Amino acid sequence: MRASKLYAPTLREVPAEAEIPSHQLMLRAGFIRKAAGGVYTYLPLAWRTLRKIEKIVREEMDGADGQEIAMPIMQPSELWRESGRWDVFGEEMFKLNDRHGREFCLGPTHEEIITDLVRNEVRSYKQLPLLLYQIQNKYRDEIRPRFGLMRGREFIMKDLYSFDKDEEGLDVSYKKMYDAYTKIFSRCGLVFRPVEADSGAIGGSNTHEFTALAKNGESEIAVCTKCDYAANIEKAEAVVLYPQDENELPLQKTATPNAKTIEAVIEYLNMPIEKSIKAVAFQDEKDRLICVFVRGDHEVNEIKLQNAVEAVNLRMADENAILAAGGIPGFMSPIGLKKGTMVVVDETVMEMKNACCGANEIDMHYVNANPKRDFGEVMVKDVRLIQKNDACPHCGASVDITRGIEIGQVFKLGIKYSSALRATFLDENGKEKPLVMGCYGIGVSRTMAAAIEQYHDENGIIWPRAIAPYEVVLVPVNAKNEAQMKLAEEIYTELKKEGIDVLLDDRKERPGVKFKDADLIGYPLRVTIGPKAVEEDKIEIKVRKNGKTIYDTKDGYVKNIKSLLEEL
Amino acid sequence: MRASKLYAPTLREVPAEAEIPSHQLMLRAGFIRKAAGGVYTYLPLAWRTLRKIEKIVREEMDGADGQEIAMPIMQPSELWRESGRWDVFGEEMFKLNDRHGREFCLGPTHEEIITDLVRNEVRSYKQLPLLLYQIQNKYRDEIRPRFGLMRGREFIMKDLYSFDKDEEGLDVSYKKMYDAYTKIFSRCGLVFRPVEADSGAIGGSNTHEFTALAKNGESEIAVCTKCDYAANIEKAEAVVLYPQDENELPLQKTATPNAKTIEAVIEYLNMPIEKSIKAVAFQDEKDRLICVFVRGDHEVNEIKLQNAVEAVNLRMADENAILAAGGIPGFMSPIGLKKGTMVVVDETVMEMKNACCGANEIDMHYVNANPKRDFGEVMVKDVRLIQKNDACPHCGASVDITRGIEIGQVFKLGIKYSSALRATFLDENGKEKPLVMGCYGIGVSRTMAAAIEQYHDENGIIWPRAIAPYEVVLVPVNAKNEAQMKLAEEIYTELKKEGIDVLLDDRKERPGVKFKDADLIGYPLRVTIGPKAVEEDKIEIKVRKNGKTIYDTKDGYVKNIKSLLEEL
Repeated sequence: MRASKLYAPTLREVPAEAEIPSHQLMLRAGFIRKAAGGVYTYLPLAWRTLRKIEKIVREEMDGADGQEIAMPIMQPSELWRESGRWDVFGEEMFKLNDRHGREFCLGPTHEEIITDLVRNEVRSYKQLPLLLYQIQNKYRDEIRPRFGLMRGREFIMKDLYSFDKDEEGLDVSYKKMYDAYTKIFSRCGLVFRPVEADSGAIGGSNTHEFTALAKNGESEIAVCTKCDYAANIEKAEAVVLYPQDENELPLQKTATPNAKTIEAVIEYLNMPIEKSIKAVAFQDEKDRLICVFVRGDHEVNEIKLQNAVEAVNLRMADENAILAAGGIPGFMSPIGLKKGTMVVVDETVMEMKNACCGANEIDMHYVNANPKRDFGEVMVKDVRLIQKNDACPHCGASVDITRGIEIGQVFKLGIKYSSALRATFLDENGKEKPLVMGCYGIGVSRTMAAAIEQYHDENGIIWPRAIAPYEVVLVPVNAKNEAQMKLAEEIYTELKKEGIDVLLDDRKERPGVKFKDADLIGYPLRVTIGPKAVEEDKIEIKVRKNGKTIYDTKDGYVKNIKSLLEEL
Repeated sequence: MRASKLYAPTLREVPAEAEIPSHQLMLRAGFIRKAAGGVYTYLPLAWRTLRKIEKIVREEMDGADGQEIAMPIMQPSELWRESGRWDVFGEEMFKLNDRHGREFCLGPTHEEIITDLVRNEVRSYKQLPLLLYQIQNKYRDEIRPRFGLMRGREFIMKDLYSFDKDEEGLDVSYKKMYDAYTKIFSRCGLVFRPVEADSGAIGGSNTHEFTALAKNGESEIAVCTKCDYAANIEKAEAVVLYPQDENELPLQKTATPNAKTIEAVIEYLNMPIEKSIKAVAFQDEKDRLICVFVRGDHEVNEIKLQNAVEAVNLRMADENAILAAGGIPGFMSPIGLKKGTMVVVDETVMEMKNACCGANEIDMHYVNANPKRDFGEVMVKDVRLIQKNDACPHCGASVDITRGIEIGQVFKLGIKYSSALRATFLDENGKEKPLVMGCYGIGVSRTMAAAIEQYHDENGIIWPRAIAPYEVVLVPVNAKNEAQMKLAEEIYTELKKEGIDVLLDDRKERPGVKFKDADLIGYPLRVTIGPKAVEEDKIEIKVRKNGKTIYDTKDGYVKNIKSLLEEL
């Protein structure tokens, strides 16, 4: 390809709406243009990168016995009503009517469609396992689409669905996908972690998110500094902290005038924060009051709490609800709440000795509270957020908290959809059973954005070789200089012949403009043909990633380029 | 690939809803499944064929300087209002609102989006020509989706848009696409004709439809029996027919009691139908009355008429409107209509001598009407449908009327959209001018269906090699026979190594079932490994297209298969 023909309109200005580097750089470097909020056109450079990612995805899906199909984007409402999700998805689903008034949605996911497809065709255990996938646009009506391709409303996903005869089969399919995902993101050159995650609205009992580490990521993850443990902080198990043993002193009520916050209480009592107990009160969708107690320096993990009390939605409790349960806001205590109030105490709190906590009286706290002795019958659960330096639940080393971008997720669905849609098969004994399902997604367009978040500098993108729109940009310094152009054309022909994906920047622009664009677009290698190349047989090869510059001769440069590319 | 793993659920029964072979066979052979009216899932075999078609399309688009991009399926209404088409498309366009109440449509086509894209970026003639394309789902809410993939509501299209600085540039782009389309459909193995067509609602002044000849096609086309002229009958020019010269006799009114139809009139008057003139009256969207006269054995071409009188919609005229213009329904004549009535006379009618026509009186006709002498001031136009045995407008030989499937269309749009959306550039003299556009579509999913319409027999599909889901099916007669399976596996490995796209039918089914499926799915070649192959080194190769069976040895069969494939 020749840059003079390439449609890659670059911008010198950073568009104001773009907040993070991937969004800014994709606009500036001519990769995408916005058509509506969260809806983009992919220009030729972006499309080349996306097609390279897709190719890697396809190869690994095929290699893991996946078969490619294409399901409709426009899905009839009937199937979604059958599974019970038509209303669950709510405003996040784009809905429309056809001219006859029939309801459709734009697929945010395809469990219903695929379950319907196989329920009419898969009849015997002999047809299992079955793994079907597609690469396609997906639709979610995000309240606030943002960060460019990171949280769009129309985006490209690969989704695979597995069908097995039993849980063991599902384990095998799950492992296959887990391994394939590891290969895919490695091949794309990303720094990522498979992290344990909460299964959320899609349901299922076991799930991992593949998370590209990036400081602008929307996911917070806990990562072990020693072993390969990683978990979404929503999910990450918080190991129980055991304080030094000490003798239990008698419970004692003490005045703490105006000390309504933990900080005020410990200052007033002159105690370390690790000896304080913090109270938080929630109400759920059924208006149940849930009083939660965590250590003063810990935070409540609402997802864990939600799962512990089997709630769907949590909100901060109304003051009246707390008062009605015998609690005093700001001084709430597990001791003295009305019987029947739901009290959840974090596991670490239960191990505390001689701690301070509220006393359910205005301006009063207890000291020397010993939860096991004093709290009575309460629900004890891990309901706190993991923190930096907490112990890794796998190896005990300390964990770090970092951010990342969810680029893939693998899910064990079990029989949730196959039971709802009655997708059954006959097992070895002729018994009818529901298919055991898994689903596995990769955000293809988001993977492109994640790569940019990981690989860029102040001058532009730095593409990993495998997903670069072109591997090499070939820049004649002066396109009006015949000798330079002649040599550049020879090299262009030779590199193409060698199977190298090369762009010839034959534009009649100043060298500065061409070099700036090369850095901005982020081709892994730049080969420069200037006077030195023509007169001294010194062909300049520059590595975008580290700025390393090498000179080679016309006889040697191809080999050099090939070995440089292999390292990138 | 192994058939035991392939998801290709075949059906023994022809589904009742499927009316034409491509629809029936794609359902029976496990290529597609319906999700809703006009909305299908493509199963692995169909997807393989579609991907092969896409690959051919891509190669030829890239070869013709097209650059691939991907535009949104979900399009904001604002652009469509700017072009004035939001309402024009009417119920055929799927519309939806997002959660904030903003209006979108599902793209039936992308002129608005692409014009918006380039209007912000293309500034100089130096950036032209520019050819951008995509391969993507398109959406049209057909009143009556039918014939499987032939007339769906969600379907796959390639659409390319060209931007040039002037009409000459557009001519070049148009020619490039015309040639690329010719290559694409030839490579797909289709029998097709580029036919002159009417430009319809999209607008533009020059257009060809690429039509696959097929008796179940929805398009009627006129094809010269001698030269390469072909045209949609809506568009085909009808050559003026000159009768034998004769002396003009005096116009004479004669009674034709109860003879309201042409057949009744000519029977009553005992005249050949070629000497009669038929009247048809229309009204347009502005309620204008349009009285049309064609020869008794000819039919009015409503599209030509519409263009001639610059109407958007035509309907049969109300009786009252005819009466108000001085016409008598059933006996209408150009002679004696009120002044100002719009009268359109077909060119061939103007050459008639001593013909009969209505007299604008009940039960009365004229004989010896000589239009040039008697009809006064009328609009003379080619407004008749071409008929079998009419003269070819190019070479004069006789034309045939045949049916076909529109699989591609090339359009000169001119400045219709660039003026509406103000997409301009600066020419060589620094003058601002609207971009000159063309658009070029290929129905990718429809091409697959068209291939089946052209190539099938009572046993199933007969794929052209280039777009067959697999080129060769390898059938061990008895998959439980070790020697046969061993040989089959060896051949399977060897064929794959040779780059041949082969499916091994390793299913433990009776040979009859496997042979029937091979014929139904329609692999170009079947290689059978039975006792003869094992014991006598006779490998059977059968050509699906003509049933020809060849035996070859283990040393020779690869060469044989390769040369057979090259012919297919």
